[in-house]
Amino acid sequence: MKQHVIGVDFGSDSVRAAVIDLQGNIQSMAVAEYPRWKAGLYCDRSHSQFRQHPLDYLECLVQVIREVLQSADPGSIVGIGVDTTGSTPCPLDAAGMPLALRPEFSENPDAMFYLWKDHTALQESSRINEVIAGGPVDYTMYEGSVYSPEWFWAKLLYMLRHAPQAAAAAHSFAEHCDWLPALLTGGRIKAGRCAAGHKAMWHPDWGGLPPQEFLSSVDPLLDHWREKLYTETFTAEQRVGFLSPEWAEKFGLSTRVAVAGGVLDCHAGAVGAGIREGTLVKIVGTSTCDIAVARDLQRNIRGICGQVAGSVVPGMIGLEAGQSAFGDIYDWFKRFLNYYGKVSLAELEKEAALLEVDPELVALDWHNGRRTPFANALLRGAINGLTLGSTPPMVYRALVEATAFGSKKITDHYAECGIPVDTIIASGGIAKKSPLVMQICADVLNKPIQIAESEQTCALGAGIFVAVAAGCYANVPDAMAQMSSGISAEYRPDPGRSAVYAEKYRRYCALGAAAEGLTASPALGAE
Amino acid sequence: MKQHVIGVDFGSDSVRAAVIDLQGNIQSMAVAEYPRWKAGLYCDRSHSQFRQHPLDYLECLVQVIREVLQSADPGSIVGIGVDTTGSTPCPLDAAGMPLALRPEFSENPDAMFYLWKDHTALQESSRINEVIAGGPVDYTMYEGSVYSPEWFWAKLLYMLRHAPQAAAAAHSFAEHCDWLPALLTGGRIKAGRCAAGHKAMWHPDWGGLPPQEFLSSVDPLLDHWREKLYTETFTAEQRVGFLSPEWAEKFGLSTRVAVAGGVLDCHAGAVGAGIREGTLVKIVGTSTCDIAVARDLQRNIRGICGQVAGSVVPGMIGLEAGQSAFGDIYDWFKRFLNYYGKVSLAELEKEAALLEVDPELVALDWHNGRRTPFANALLRGAINGLTLGSTPPMVYRALVEATAFGSKKITDHYAECGIPVDTIIASGGIAKKSPLVMQICADVLNKPIQIAESEQTCALGAGIFVAVAAGCYANVPDAMAQMSSGISAEYRPDPGRSAVYAEKYRRYCALGAAAEGLTASPALGAE
Repeated sequence: MKQHVIGVDFGSDSVRAAVIDLQGNIQSMAVAEYPRWKAGLYCDRSHSQFRQHPLDYLECLVQVIREVLQSADPGSIVGIGVDTTGSTPCPLDAAGMPLALRPEFSENPDAMFYLWKDHTALQESSRINEVIAGGPVDYTMYEGSVYSPEWFWAKLLYMLRHAPQAAAAAHSFAEHCDWLPALLTGGRIKAGRCAAGHKAMWHPDWGGLPPQEFLSSVDPLLDHWREKLYTETFTAEQRVGFLSPEWAEKFGLSTRVAVAGGVLDCHAGAVGAGIREGTLVKIVGTSTCDIAVARDLQRNIRGICGQVAGSVVPGMIGLEAGQSAFGDIYDWFKRFLNYYGKVSLAELEKEAALLEVDPELVALDWHNGRRTPFANALLRGAINGLTLGSTPPMVYRALVEATAFGSKKITDHYAECGIPVDTIIASGGIAKKSPLVMQICADVLNKPIQIAESEQTCALGAGIFVAVAAGCYANVPDAMAQMSSGISAEYRPDPGRSAVYAEKYRRYCALGAAAEGLTASPALGAE
Repeated sequence: MKQHVIGVDFGSDSVRAAVIDLQGNIQSMAVAEYPRWKAGLYCDRSHSQFRQHPLDYLECLVQVIREVLQSADPGSIVGIGVDTTGSTPCPLDAAGMPLALRPEFSENPDAMFYLWKDHTALQESSRINEVIAGGPVDYTMYEGSVYSPEWFWAKLLYMLRHAPQAAAAAHSFAEHCDWLPALLTGGRIKAGRCAAGHKAMWHPDWGGLPPQEFLSSVDPLLDHWREKLYTETFTAEQRVGFLSPEWAEKFGLSTRVAVAGGVLDCHAGAVGAGIREGTLVKIVGTSTCDIAVARDLQRNIRGICGQVAGSVVPGMIGLEAGQSAFGDIYDWFKRFLNYYGKVSLAELEKEAALLEVDPELVALDWHNGRRTPFANALLRGAINGLTLGSTPPMVYRALVEATAFGSKKITDHYAECGIPVDTIIASGGIAKKSPLVMQICADVLNKPIQIAESEQTCALGAGIFVAVAAGCYANVPDAMAQMSSGISAEYRPDPGRSAVYAEKYRRYCALGAAAEGLTASPALGAE
């Protein structure tokens, strides 16, 4: 009988499940939007507080698995692989359950998952950077040498400082991608290499997580937290276990279904899109992840989101960079215009596509801070060069250009650091749906951009990992060779526009440097 | 019988006429909007081309004069005084009529009035500044030492360079405020001191307009233009003549009605608002004019729009500064939002008034370049510090703050140059209608702002001048003592908000300096 795996991809707004055959073809697919999140619950945009309720994940998970199995043979399923956003951690109780599943915490945002883009932990990341700057060891050296408020330890410390009730009840603090496989198998949490290495300063050089002494010097509230967490980590193609009887029954599957280690969505997406040395995979959504792999590195790469052996393809070093906001900026602008009006991104894109490049209307894409190069969550977006004749389509185009310039900053930085990028594969909703954005990216980057054929490279990547975990393939490269996505389109740079954008990019860099010079550095903390 | 004067105020969008008694009370008032202008004709916002058809002025003038006379006794009218925007010049034919009144030029924007805010002459002003920078005499030394593209010679040269047909037909080039009194009296053009001194580099030091040799070195196209213009100038309280029979009949008035010299609107407004030494009158509309007077100056004031003896109150030196856009920025933002939506400034103001000051959301008020201090038409507006949570009311508030910061730049500059300002009187539509804007200005300037009671200080000022011209008063100060506007309200700074704004002003200045550093200087020309 033909075998299948299920790849489950938890995104920022929804979860999707895909039944995938061992050649990488998606047989059936289902999506569910998180209902509480969609209703705006537990969030406070004005303070960049973004929390998600575990019930959003659980209810939607059961729904999509049941739905995809309606048009697939449950008996053919040999494994489930999960990817999630991250760093998206949550406090857990003694039983390993998210605190918000307990009645007394059910409406407490601090007891829920702290979504990757939550920036409430600004002061806490500043404190971590401050202590590292004054100490003998740079524990962020494999995470780009700047600790971000989006990451694990900052969020944990934020909870300990600001949510005493949740802090008192928390026995652990776990990434979404680590908690789910443990939940599905009924076992203990096995920390994934990917989130541990890129977000939690885990590294073999210091025998796992940073030493307790260091953590306690950041804040005594972190006393004993190292032992509450983990030392060992697991790459995503390793089998965490099999579906527990409880979850097998919920899904209508057998307990012989293997569960793979959890992985961050973009790392799975890079595998699904067919990453290899020399190829940058750009997962383009609300934000971006720009993933590369290298067999070895001559030196540490500063200013990115980390370099972790085995975080993407086992046996290679996975490199992560990204933009804190990409599609989120377009959505912000749509929301801004729709505060008193009515317009769609499609209308904006249509009008913006007709415009000439205005060399002086230059935006900065830092509405959600900057992730790479050199994370600085205190930076903000800007629109420079406005005149009394500036219209929304003009500004929209400038915002699109700004996100493309932000992309170029990353590929330039990879190149400067000796990571050769000869091919770019873009994946994600915007890559498939917005020719204007992709063409401007190609023109700005002055490189061809290939579009991954699969619309579900993340779920596909999770499927590839579990195909190995279930024993269908010997290793990830073998599985990728059979299952990774093809290429459906290629955007080639226009030489004339590339020249115009090369000049405009210079202005973007100069404006950015000036704006950054006027902003406090993340090490100094928010004012 | 009680005597009256008519003050006629040509603004950017409309003309208003007021019948005023000799105590400054307005007996009747009428307004007419320029119909061609309102329909957007002859303008090209994307190139900052703003032209007005002389028929807009003439048709509306007849309409408003007839309308105000319906509720006033025509026999009581002893004089008509006119103020207009400026520098708003137009090419004239041999008979002294605007070229656009001739059939062959009736649809040619280059044959019409070049409205003050038209910025098409950027290259031409750059050329003037360049020649002055390389020459022995700074002919702009009484105009702040930077020549603006908004001014007379730049616009004349633009026409000569870019409109050969109009250039060939032009026998002269005259300010709106100079042409109208000549038209009404049927006499030759008598150049007003105000526009000549502030906009055309006229000064007694060089015997009037700059020497022909200098003008020709700017561009040989200016050969012979000095002799086509004027040497003598007239202050606005001087009688230019009496209504011609033709215009007396059109208006339904007698030929014994005196016509005063033309004056720029804001200079008239300063007189109408009761200007005196130590008092800055801020005329707040689409842009601002910030007028002061001084008995004598210790030194030349660089970076303003000029210091001209008799340009405001005869016998004193009139000082002009201003912001290139003020209300125009609010209107731009409303238009921006209404491109796809529907909102009024009143709604925006209501929501913005509820917001806390965001110290990081800082705008630059240079959407139409900067006028004072140190004119630079190449500068552009900006919105810095945007987040994914930024809303239109937040940005509106930042724009209002930016215009207030621009005001503070001017009062700070006056103070640095030794012009003491102890009182600010604000006049104009925004001063009367927008408590939020005025309160923010008071908080930012950290000075009380008095609001002129009269809504028609410009027309009132024109009436004051003509009351002297008609012999009703011996001089302008005597007429002002009887006729100038009272004060209807005062906005006092809030100490807490003033302190917050003092800090935010520092950021505005730093951002402005950074943005300016990245923009070509006006002397170097547009790129």
